[in-house]
Amino acid sequence: MSARQFHFVGGSSGTWRITSMRTVVGEPLVAAPFLAITPGAVPAVDGTRWILSGVTSNDRYTTRGEKDRLRATQAAIGRPHANHGALIPIRKTGAWWGLTQDERRAIFEERSRHTQVGLRYLPAIARRLHHCRDLGDNQPFDFVTLFDFADADAGAFEDLVAALRETEEWQYIDREVDIRMVREP
Amino acid sequence: MSARQFHFVGGSSGTWRITSMRTVVGEPLVAAPFLAITPGAVPAVDGTRWILSGVTSNDRYTTRGEKDRLRATQAAIGRPHANHGALIPIRKTGAWWGLTQDERRAIFEERSRHTQVGLRYLPAIARRLHHCRDLGDNQPFDFVTLFDFADADAGAFEDLVAALRETEEWQYIDREVDIRMVREP
Repeated sequence: MSARQFHFVGGSSGTWRITSMRTVVGEPLVAAPFLAITPGAVPAVDGTRWILSGVTSNDRYTTRGEKDRLRATQAAIGRPHANHGALIPIRKTGAWWGLTQDERRAIFEERSRHTQVGLRYLPAIARRLHHCRDLGDNQPFDFVTLFDFADADAGAFEDLVAALRETEEWQYIDREVDIRMVREP
Repeated sequence: MSARQFHFVGGSSGTWRITSMRTVVGEPLVAAPFLAITPGAVPAVDGTRWILSGVTSNDRYTTRGEKDRLRATQAAIGRPHANHGALIPIRKTGAWWGLTQDERRAIFEERSRHTQVGLRYLPAIARRLHHCRDLGDNQPFDFVTLFDFADADAGAFEDLVAALRETEEWQYIDREVDIRMVREP
């Protein structure tokens, strides 16, 4: 079985050099110059500023039709030409988690078109979603999403995150930090 | 915020005395005489045979109508008269987790009536579901469910678990251990 748990270490080394960290809403993360991404056990690394952990998991909202469309076009993280990256941890409000499955689905897709919006940017933007909320009590974020893309697609990525932040779904987000980075040669 | 993470420690002490451990399918757990249930950090306890951990979370399939019916009738774990207990860890197959949300919902509720079956036994049977699958890699189970009920409802509890094990949903379960216990005076 391939690893599902990943750790995102902001610190003094890593394959990604952090170019900006912008707090969109809520409490910031302390600045760090590099990001290392490691599967498996929690790493011990000198110079660590923070570690975010998350687990890839089954999709929570996707229907079979949507999944088939996603699978037909999406790319996996790590393409050599995709040397721009973004790490965007978010947390949703208690109000969101108090909604039922049908209510969350209605906001996520029928009204916010989260999957439909994302599909427009495939395969240029690769995305891997990690779940954190159920790792235990008092997690700092509910999700960490890692993206990578080529320099030519940097504008498309801005369009994607701007479109999502305009949605009804994003009204339920009370912490978001937008970390941008480039892959070190 | 109340604790969401719980540890279930099979060992030489605890408020629940284990009366039977039956492996329904898959690998067994080693025998233990007592069960201790602790919130928060992983406990260090002498005589520990195993520790199962899980996190209470948002419902994955429940609609608003179902949730309202559940809330109107369900009881919380820990009623003084409910001195019979059951702890039933289960794991679902890769085939289950490869299904999409609409496919899993169709099996879980439209065809297996998981929520509707459970509603018949409320408030006599109290239930608390803990999620384990997304705690990290290679978890021994996906869910741990804790039940308690009075002596007079022991027959109803057998009916409930028997009804669920007959469902299409249960065909996707490849590990299940059924642990029964009584609360020590």
